[in-house]
Amino acid sequence: MNDIVVQKYGGSSLADSDKIKRVAQKIRNRVSEGYKLVVIVSAMGETTNRLIELAKEVSSKPHPRELDMLLTTGEQVSAALLSMSLNDLKVETKSLNAFQAGIFTSSNFSEARIQKFKVEKILKLLEDHDVLVITGFQGITKEGDLTTLGRGGSDISAVALSAAVGTHCEIYSDFPGIFTFDPRLHRNAKKLKYVTYDEILEMASLGARVLHSRAVEIAKKYDVKIYCASTFSEEEGTYVVADNIEQPVVTGMSVMENQTQVTIANLPLNYSLVYKIFDEMAQKAFNVDMISIISINNKLNISFTIIEEEMENFDRYLKEALSSFDEISVNYEHGYVKLSVVGIGMRNEKGVASRFFKSLRDIPIKMVTTSEIKISCLIEKEYMKKATDALIKEFDL
Amino acid sequence: MNDIVVQKYGGSSLADSDKIKRVAQKIRNRVSEGYKLVVIVSAMGETTNRLIELAKEVSSKPHPRELDMLLTTGEQVSAALLSMSLNDLKVETKSLNAFQAGIFTSSNFSEARIQKFKVEKILKLLEDHDVLVITGFQGITKEGDLTTLGRGGSDISAVALSAAVGTHCEIYSDFPGIFTFDPRLHRNAKKLKYVTYDEILEMASLGARVLHSRAVEIAKKYDVKIYCASTFSEEEGTYVVADNIEQPVVTGMSVMENQTQVTIANLPLNYSLVYKIFDEMAQKAFNVDMISIISINNKLNISFTIIEEEMENFDRYLKEALSSFDEISVNYEHGYVKLSVVGIGMRNEKGVASRFFKSLRDIPIKMVTTSEIKISCLIEKEYMKKATDALIKEFDL
Repeated sequence: MNDIVVQKYGGSSLADSDKIKRVAQKIRNRVSEGYKLVVIVSAMGETTNRLIELAKEVSSKPHPRELDMLLTTGEQVSAALLSMSLNDLKVETKSLNAFQAGIFTSSNFSEARIQKFKVEKILKLLEDHDVLVITGFQGITKEGDLTTLGRGGSDISAVALSAAVGTHCEIYSDFPGIFTFDPRLHRNAKKLKYVTYDEILEMASLGARVLHSRAVEIAKKYDVKIYCASTFSEEEGTYVVADNIEQPVVTGMSVMENQTQVTIANLPLNYSLVYKIFDEMAQKAFNVDMISIISINNKLNISFTIIEEEMENFDRYLKEALSSFDEISVNYEHGYVKLSVVGIGMRNEKGVASRFFKSLRDIPIKMVTTSEIKISCLIEKEYMKKATDALIKEFDL
Repeated sequence: MNDIVVQKYGGSSLADSDKIKRVAQKIRNRVSEGYKLVVIVSAMGETTNRLIELAKEVSSKPHPRELDMLLTTGEQVSAALLSMSLNDLKVETKSLNAFQAGIFTSSNFSEARIQKFKVEKILKLLEDHDVLVITGFQGITKEGDLTTLGRGGSDISAVALSAAVGTHCEIYSDFPGIFTFDPRLHRNAKKLKYVTYDEILEMASLGARVLHSRAVEIAKKYDVKIYCASTFSEEEGTYVVADNIEQPVVTGMSVMENQTQVTIANLPLNYSLVYKIFDEMAQKAFNVDMISIISINNKLNISFTIIEEEMENFDRYLKEALSSFDEISVNYEHGYVKLSVVGIGMRNEKGVASRFFKSLRDIPIKMVTTSEIKISCLIEKEYMKKATDALIKEFDL
């Protein structure tokens, strides 16, 4: 049989009938090069959001099972339409929903995990079809309930299916690839030819608009090569791989605005209390980042960042959690920017931190955290332009 | 277990979130009276038409399998939304699509026939649910392809499921029941309390806006009682039953405008040719009605009606079919109205035809056909008002 390729098309690439026809054309061209394709589709344009709106209109708290039952229709619509359009181009094709493709998942609605595909059925169907169009983002439990995989779910479907079939995965969207930093920030952002799984996992914002990080985790685990490119352009995209053969020291930079620094001073030297605080916040789904803890005079001083708009809720929960300790002071400082650079090359290259600090030597840094392949710092917003310019220059981003 | 009732809600009763919530409330009230409900839903409002439009945009001739794959999403959306809304009202419920309810059909896409339901599963689920919301209009083949049942398909789903479960069926729509004639025609139309299967089958237009005639066929075959009423009113509706205990001689009247009378003169006295003509026209899906055939001087003269807008196509096919007979003349006359009265009581009552002709004595009648429970005539449009007034008066409609 011909080589099999898995492709995934995002919702904006299928937003209207004209785009669907252009995607069909693109797929037909690939078939005529001698490939068999499994195509994973998202819901058209804003469909999923529109369905969620409808759900909120009929129910104050939509039942998770029923919400998944509702949302899965979005991908079925695009799969059927794309398959029709392919049929018109004389491509032998068939659309498959989660029941038909046998996409089995765990039963936690709205964030189910894929367990297996009916791979034999898919391979069998590929013997007499050029293309199978499969609904992304969804699965079924063994009891036959429909589930969805959460945000970025279609990426996960595509990568998991690639792993199951043993082939690589092409992710098409409106974006021509993965950049050294967010092009909205600075027009000089460079498109990366290669980026590693670890780099994307350390810095989700690099791939945020192109590829969901859970999909990258699966790709890393099963060694699935991913190619991200623009649907409607021939421009070369970005390969997401295990090792970056180009190995630049720093691959990319990310900037997150609206950070609030939280400082909790005078906590008793009791790490189970620290655990309790962070566990509570995690359960409440706050994004706590850049945690650093220092003990001074037998007291713990904790500092970390949250997103500015979460502050009010956060403060309420924190006050509850700390209500029995009246010496403790909590302080919030707003308007900060988190700036990070990431690069798999840091693992081997010394001196990245010193180059980082050298470039930012004129800027007051509020906080620093590091990982094996990432350095992050917190600065005031007024220095953002100056800092990013310096880092872009220093690391040739 | 409590008594089971099957209900069906049409698309206009589920057209927006507000209506869905009102339907949920209505269902909840019924549950609180001690019933278990199986609710069959249509797609919301104009959803199906919108999906068909989309299909036409992406494909010049949408593949029937894929079209069904597309259209079945409409009912899944309304089933999920209604179920959510019921959950909010503390009703134990679950939505089921064709896979989940095991609605098996033949594999002729777009007009599949229901073969069976997974009745055991449905009954089992009803043990710990008050309400099951099931997608109408659709099914699956034994290979797992999605199918649709054609126009009025949700009525068919509801009646077939009632037959399978052994209960009666309630059909809710915007219309408060079945009338003696189309209320748009004349405001004096009376709502029928009872109407028989045969009457509706003889005169589909009586129930046209409320109940699909294929559903009535199934109801007749399995003796399923149907109750048709308005979704959002408490007004009593119409019971569709095997025998009308009230037995009025004439139950209803129908008026079909835009009729063209076709007359084929001088055909050779050869009934296999007649068969050939009508068979051809049936295959081309022309609506041929009021057929009458008379032989004069060893020649056949055939007359029948078609719908005016079909004339052009019809003429082309007819000319082809008759191309080897050059003596034959074909004549079309436009602008006629077909007027019928139907009544199960005609079977026993003599003199209905004479009362019919007496009321229309001042009107030139172009053609007459009769069945056991129906009399139809063709008249010119200008006499329509006069004729309907006379029939309404004569038969107290």
